[in-house]
Amino acid sequence: MSINYPKGMKQLNTPLSQKKSIQYGKRGMKFEDMINESNKYYLAYNKAVIHKKPTPVQIVKVDYPKRSAAKITEAYFRQASTTDYNGVFKGHYIDFEAKETKNKTSFPLSNFHEHQIQHMLNCEKNGGLCFVLLWFSSLNKCYYLDFKYLYDFWTNKNQRKSILIKDLLEIGFECPVGYLPTIDYLIPLQKRIDC
Amino acid sequence: MSINYPKGMKQLNTPLSQKKSIQYGKRGMKFEDMINESNKYYLAYNKAVIHKKPTPVQIVKVDYPKRSAAKITEAYFRQASTTDYNGVFKGHYIDFEAKETKNKTSFPLSNFHEHQIQHMLNCEKNGGLCFVLLWFSSLNKCYYLDFKYLYDFWTNKNQRKSILIKDLLEIGFECPVGYLPTIDYLIPLQKRIDC
Repeated sequence: MSINYPKGMKQLNTPLSQKKSIQYGKRGMKFEDMINESNKYYLAYNKAVIHKKPTPVQIVKVDYPKRSAAKITEAYFRQASTTDYNGVFKGHYIDFEAKETKNKTSFPLSNFHEHQIQHMLNCEKNGGLCFVLLWFSSLNKCYYLDFKYLYDFWTNKNQRKSILIKDLLEIGFECPVGYLPTIDYLIPLQKRIDC
Repeated sequence: MSINYPKGMKQLNTPLSQKKSIQYGKRGMKFEDMINESNKYYLAYNKAVIHKKPTPVQIVKVDYPKRSAAKITEAYFRQASTTDYNGVFKGHYIDFEAKETKNKTSFPLSNFHEHQIQHMLNCEKNGGLCFVLLWFSSLNKCYYLDFKYLYDFWTNKNQRKSILIKDLLEIGFECPVGYLPTIDYLIPLQKRIDC
């Protein structure tokens, strides 16, 4: 289902002046929106219940104007202690982080944070199924990678600072990018469960 | 482990002037803090990974002052689409809502919102284990109730607007309130899994 752009073709590159509205994917969507759309599809068809967690915010001041909604006037971003997505698939707890790169051959490990790795490690220890979705925006491709492999890279067993696409093809799975769902990441997850 | 205060004893009542610092529980904690403490304990002892979700906020304006943290200067509370807590326990997806009342004999169903019921229904359909924790602040007692029973009450099969404590003693479970963990809600959950 995914489109293979010819090597070097900069189909999705956008001038700096349009940076704010960079668009990815088939339907002009950002990666996060593509995942949210997939989650809506999974929910509607009763395949899984997966939600993105809200951004953690420390609220300091709130105004309560008459006749209108409470307005937060001072707040700060807090460090998250988990990943962005979790939910349930066939009774299993699933938990994942979604990241993107403009690179064309490898995914930088620096995109991940210590707290995300630690959280997924904790979840796996308690029987959860954790993975990452890696979006290569220049290629319009999404790879699924089980946490255990990410953890091997992270703990530097492989002495590398990024994960090559050729490795992802071997130890990961290329998720179909299509219409319904936009990114079908339950396919590789089902394979893991079946193993 | 729980303390049974004599009927009518208003041990924990606080004058209006101190409303902001109403304190519950053995260690002067709010109910939410008691649950968060329990979750920390479960995490530390590798029994479960359960987190409270951040409050959903729609961020409108952010200032980026030099040499200090980004400051959110305009934001609004958004309606949540899920419950407050979820996580993993022995591979199972668990999901719950925690609510409190000052009542002494029954828990008002009006404390729950449609989106919370719908979310738990969706999760149960996908094999998740959903329940509610009901805190009776005047009694210092916490009851666990499986979602299926709450749903029966909610859909008004019982034609009532609240759940009586005597029903909770029959169809629910009184969680031990102690020190480590503060509220041991994994005990009834384990019973459900064992059934």
